[in-house]
Amino acid sequence: MKINGQVQKILSHYESDNPGTKANLARILMHGKLGGTGKLLILPVDQGMEHGPARSFAPNPPAYDPHYHWQLAIEAGLSAFAAPLGFIEAVAADYAGEIPLILKCNSHDVLYDEKDPMGAMTASVEDALRLGCVAVGYTIYPGTVDRRLLYEQLQSLTLDAKEAGLAVVVWSYPRGSGLSKPGESGVDVTAYAAQIAAQMGAHVIKVKLSTEHIEQAEAKKVYEKYNIPISTLADRVRHVVQSAFNGRRIVIFSGGAKSDTETVLNEARAIRDGGGFGSIIGRKSFQRPRPEALELLGTMMKIYRGEMQ
Amino acid sequence: MKINGQVQKILSHYESDNPGTKANLARILMHGKLGGTGKLLILPVDQGMEHGPARSFAPNPPAYDPHYHWQLAIEAGLSAFAAPLGFIEAVAADYAGEIPLILKCNSHDVLYDEKDPMGAMTASVEDALRLGCVAVGYTIYPGTVDRRLLYEQLQSLTLDAKEAGLAVVVWSYPRGSGLSKPGESGVDVTAYAAQIAAQMGAHVIKVKLSTEHIEQAEAKKVYEKYNIPISTLADRVRHVVQSAFNGRRIVIFSGGAKSDTETVLNEARAIRDGGGFGSIIGRKSFQRPRPEALELLGTMMKIYRGEMQ
Amino acid sequence: MKINGQVQKILSHYESDNPGTKANLARILMHGKLGGTGKLLILPVDQGMEHGPARSFAPNPPAYDPHYHWQLAIEAGLSAFAAPLGFIEAVAADYAGEIPLILKCNSHDVLYDEKDPMGAMTASVEDALRLGCVAVGYTIYPGTVDRRLLYEQLQSLTLDAKEAGLAVVVWSYPRGSGLSKPGESGVDVTAYAAQIAAQMGAHVIKVKLSTEHIEQAEAKKVYEKYNIPISTLADRVRHVVQSAFNGRRIVIFSGGAKSDTETVLNEARAIRDGGGFGSIIGRKSFQRPRPEALELLGTMMKIYRGEMQ
Amino acid sequence: MKINGQVQKILSHYESDNPGTKANLARILMHGKLGGTGKLLILPVDQGMEHGPARSFAPNPPAYDPHYHWQLAIEAGLSAFAAPLGFIEAVAADYAGEIPLILKCNSHDVLYDEKDPMGAMTASVEDALRLGCVAVGYTIYPGTVDRRLLYEQLQSLTLDAKEAGLAVVVWSYPRGSGLSKPGESGVDVTAYAAQIAAQMGAHVIKVKLSTEHIEQAEAKKVYEKYNIPISTLADRVRHVVQSAFNGRRIVIFSGGAKSDTETVLNEARAIRDGGGFGSIIGRKSFQRPRPEALELLGTMMKIYRGEMQ
Amino acid sequence: MKINGQVQKILSHYESDNPGTKANLARILMHGKLGGTGKLLILPVDQGMEHGPARSFAPNPPAYDPHYHWQLAIEAGLSAFAAPLGFIEAVAADYAGEIPLILKCNSHDVLYDEKDPMGAMTASVEDALRLGCVAVGYTIYPGTVDRRLLYEQLQSLTLDAKEAGLAVVVWSYPRGSGLSKPGESGVDVTAYAAQIAAQMGAHVIKVKLSTEHIEQAEAKKVYEKYNIPISTLADRVRHVVQSAFNGRRIVIFSGGAKSDTETVLNEARAIRDGGGFGSIIGRKSFQRPRPEALELLGTMMKIYRGEMQ
Repeated sequence: MKINGQVQKILSHYESDNPGTKANLARILMHGKLGGTGKLLILPVDQGMEHGPARSFAPNPPAYDPHYHWQLAIEAGLSAFAAPLGFIEAVAADYAGEIPLILKCNSHDVLYDEKDPMGAMTASVEDALRLGCVAVGYTIYPGTVDRRLLYEQLQSLTLDAKEAGLAVVVWSYPRGSGLSKPGESGVDVTAYAAQIAAQMGAHVIKVKLSTEHIEQAEAKKVYEKYNIPISTLADRVRHVVQSAFNGRRIVIFSGGAKSDTETVLNEARAIRDGGGFGSIIGRKSFQRPRPEALELLGTMMKIYRGEMQ
Repeated sequence: MKINGQVQKILSHYESDNPGTKANLARILMHGKLGGTGKLLILPVDQGMEHGPARSFAPNPPAYDPHYHWQLAIEAGLSAFAAPLGFIEAVAADYAGEIPLILKCNSHDVLYDEKDPMGAMTASVEDALRLGCVAVGYTIYPGTVDRRLLYEQLQSLTLDAKEAGLAVVVWSYPRGSGLSKPGESGVDVTAYAAQIAAQMGAHVIKVKLSTEHIEQAEAKKVYEKYNIPISTLADRVRHVVQSAFNGRRIVIFSGGAKSDTETVLNEARAIRDGGGFGSIIGRKSFQRPRPEALELLGTMMKIYRGEMQ
Repeated sequence: MKINGQVQKILSHYESDNPGTKANLARILMHGKLGGTGKLLILPVDQGMEHGPARSFAPNPPAYDPHYHWQLAIEAGLSAFAAPLGFIEAVAADYAGEIPLILKCNSHDVLYDEKDPMGAMTASVEDALRLGCVAVGYTIYPGTVDRRLLYEQLQSLTLDAKEAGLAVVVWSYPRGSGLSKPGESGVDVTAYAAQIAAQMGAHVIKVKLSTEHIEQAEAKKVYEKYNIPISTLADRVRHVVQSAFNGRRIVIFSGGAKSDTETVLNEARAIRDGGGFGSIIGRKSFQRPRPEALELLGTMMKIYRGEMQ
Repeated sequence: MKINGQVQKILSHYESDNPGTKANLARILMHGKLGGTGKLLILPVDQGMEHGPARSFAPNPPAYDPHYHWQLAIEAGLSAFAAPLGFIEAVAADYAGEIPLILKCNSHDVLYDEKDPMGAMTASVEDALRLGCVAVGYTIYPGTVDRRLLYEQLQSLTLDAKEAGLAVVVWSYPRGSGLSKPGESGVDVTAYAAQIAAQMGAHVIKVKLSTEHIEQAEAKKVYEKYNIPISTLADRVRHVVQSAFNGRRIVIFSGGAKSDTETVLNEARAIRDGGGFGSIIGRKSFQRPRPEALELLGTMMKIYRGEMQ
Repeated sequence: MKINGQVQKILSHYESDNPGTKANLARILMHGKLGGTGKLLILPVDQGMEHGPARSFAPNPPAYDPHYHWQLAIEAGLSAFAAPLGFIEAVAADYAGEIPLILKCNSHDVLYDEKDPMGAMTASVEDALRLGCVAVGYTIYPGTVDRRLLYEQLQSLTLDAKEAGLAVVVWSYPRGSGLSKPGESGVDVTAYAAQIAAQMGAHVIKVKLSTEHIEQAEAKKVYEKYNIPISTLADRVRHVVQSAFNGRRIVIFSGGAKSDTETVLNEARAIRDGGGFGSIIGRKSFQRPRPEALELLGTMMKIYRGEMQ
């Protein structure tokens, strides 16, 4: 694996990390059809835990089987596969080394649906190591009452991961009592969520695509005074990437609520044009029939590679 | 102990586990009259703690004695015996090696009866090892307010158990403020509970048999849209097994409220026909006189072996 | 110290324990005037902490001095002496080896009197070892809201104690929001409390003598249906002993509210006749003048030895 | 340092402690002008943290400087100097070995003034060791809702201290929701507070001088029934000392609200006459001009030495 | 690096610290244009986390990039740079050794804005060591309900830091339910906050400049009775420095709400004239265009060096 210039430049932003972590980041950046482009496309499958199995997999029943997802990710040539402990254990040995694995270390379910979700630690760095993963993942919910507990759990996980030479991927999802419903995807809140993850030491940050809504009054004054461009999706991607150390951290995006193909592709275009590092795409891929999913993912990667508008 | 093909296939689903854990799973799967069939029948006796001694043992007073249960399990040829620390300690040395033991590591009592039960850690992996157990057991209550604490305790227990080469059996019992009373045994909730346990790394998952009730509105839409078959008990068993990684995890069932013999046997038939891996049956066996219990258990195992309809 | 048959039989119920723990149990069972009988009479002095010094010791002022109790226990020929850290430290070195010591590791005071008492950990297994104790003691309050925290503290203490070759004595005192005032000493609740302690791995269980009151509706049905004898004190002792693994665990009793000599002796007779393993008697002994206390304790031991009706 | 008989007798009450702890107790008992008398006079300066700097030090501004206190304690010939981490660090190296140091390991401030104070752990046994202290100090607030957390923190501190050969000084200050305002200094409550500290393993117990008020109804019955003398301050000192293992634990006193010289001296006389072990005196000494403080402290020590009435 | 007399005198106040910590304090005191003067000017950049990225960096967009701040601090010749984990990691390797680094180990964000802020531990001493930092930083909020948890986290961090030879910088910011809004910057509260940090073992204490407001009634009596001078800003600086062990601890100040240049410079003059040790200045520097920031910082340092009035 010869690291090319684009990837070397990204890795140079992580100079304080040890060679183990940098090598694992490189494994993601050099894998699959986007390998070497500095872009990423990751398949995350935690929806069985987060929303329940039928809601996640009934639209495409083969997806009940963890092997389905792994095979999809490999065949599509994606950058990495992310899932909770059970799914990773179900395939790690069978497909050892075929695709970089990200172990999601906390999870949340909706059998009790609280205003301020917390999630629970459900896996550890030890699990990631024994299962051959390149990174651990963790979800924080900025805006919740007890986010402090999440941040401290992430702090501990991050410390362990970096000592073990793993990378850290943070899902930063604003939620909870501190925010209105539109505020959860407001551009100011999303940029703030990216900054929080970056300041906590994340190597890769996953946020949702944001809207033009500005949630916080103090922030609104600043956006207006300095006339920060946020009217297009690409503008907002650019602002969020800037908010994560001016592009020195990898920021990837998951889509909005709509999921027809053209919307997904337009989102990919906006991510690319705004300087985003790629997408993480779950239900929109595995809930389609396999051939359609492969085509969609393939097209997205062409957009990221610049092979099509 | 020569592992046959059926058991080898099941063990192949646990490829990421170490040889110690796989050997302990094999010990359960190869033991007793169902040894080698891929089916299980387990005797759990935690009711003294969970409901009180008189309610549990007065119907059949010899059952106050922990030796009674062990002997019943051995004589019946069951797959394993599961109990809290005290019961296991009371018999482990006397009957060392005669039947696989599962140490239930958390317990709950009803001297204070809360809407959102938590249980308490009452034993550990160290205890399981010193007592010669093949597995640890733990009960989670999805749907409760503080389930996060339970999940994190299970996470820690699971990590320790897997490092020690033990198997992990999770009782996944939906309860609490997040659910209506019928919702606790709704098919969507039961399938979700199986998924949660599977994602958390359980090797064996114990759920209750479910009803046709669908609890969550979002789930209901999916069950209707995709016309998921749930009208018969066997249908629901099949759906729950599918929800645990499409059959890649061992799912066993405890019965509903009725306990006449014919109901129990019909439930066993439904479990078998739906692709379930067997039963865990406590009060329905040890509250009967010993000969009746032996006959019932024997008949169930014939059903699971396919020796009778 | 030659272990006789009666004691050997009792020790055989603890076959899963290591030789260190069994030796320490034997030390209690072989000590004093009841040594070798399989019966126990223990002096506990934690009332200074639990109720305050004046309420405990003013009736017999020499009892303010920890040496008083130790000397009383030795002179009377009791089986063991139990107390919190301070009292044990005050005498352990001066009387090293003269009587088995039980270190009470949690304590509660009534300067704030809560409905759901918790107690606090006030000593540890390390203390018990450095002070030459044979056992640790711990009080649980089944029926309280947060009993889970107590059970988990006991679990940890028990694990440490058994690894260190110590015995575990559990005071199981139903209290709190889950119970009515009469319910705290109801026979169903007391039997349940004994079962809980037994399931948690206690070697010796201390409960209060119970009344005919039945607290829980579900239990009441069972007591009536199966016509469980509970009308005499001896009946209730028998039922509680049965509820602790059918006599496989040592259960000892503290008295009811009355404390005239005849009542105490009648209680001892009931404990003996019901198959109880003895008494733990604090205020009723040390609040009397020393000669009266010695006589009372002597008489109780005669009853337990079967030397008088 | 030749230990004389009076001190040897006191040390004999701590026979269960290791030689390190006994040597450190001896260092306090043999130091300064009261060395060898079995009496103590300690200077505590935690008021900057507990009440704020201006309230503590503005009456005598040189007292803002930690060196001031140390020098005062040395020049006056006191037994020991007690303070939080910052003050101890500020002088420990400069005056190493000149006076025994007690590191106060928890602290409370009144910038938020709660009904049930908790305090926070602000130093540790490791700090005490690296700073050359002879003892650690800790304040408990019996009567508060969450005193359990304090007791458990003290338990852990005490265990560490005794293993490290340090002595343990407990400030036992009744406070909180469980008590009326007069109850905080009631004689029953004060005696109970001394007992609690003693039972938790304290070597030296600091309580406030108490009033004739009796707080708890159950206690009141006993004080009246047994006619316990509590009408003079000396009576109450005697009762409190008796309540701490009949004089087997060192109990020292801080004064009431009044602070004119004669009151302070009369209190010292009462402490002496009641068998108390001495005083701990902070604001009453350091808030006076230095010469007055030296005179007051000198006079108190004469009283304790019996050189003046 | 030859330590001059002024710095040696300051270091002599930290005699109880190990040579590692003293060397790290010396590194800060000897660095940059104020090196050797005993004064400090520190650039802290935690506002991205504390207030959000746009509010912090939009006024001067190059400041989104962590490299901007580092370069600013180096070019200006400041004493040290302080930031959360992410910012430190982003530059530590590239600029290793060029300026002393302070790792802020806890952080707070305002996506949920609580009355009693807590913050979260977001970095550790291990991080500080691997990143080559000279000190750790931590923010406490005296006046908040649960400040106890903050103090205990700081206690643990401080212990680790001192063992590792690092210095400890404490941001002591009164907030929360215990205080009125004006009280947060009242002179009594600010002095108290400085005392708390000092007593907890901080080497460097950062407080805000205070107002004449006196918050606490008990304190007000003392300020009036002893006529403590607080009418000028320099008076209040002097009082706060006195409240931190009479000048034996380094106290630095951040400015008030106004931020025009003249105000900032006048504040620097007051800090100097009141005996303060310098400033910590974030938004007021990095939100200006770079040339203006360099000029402002340069002028401040001239004031501290006494080169201009």
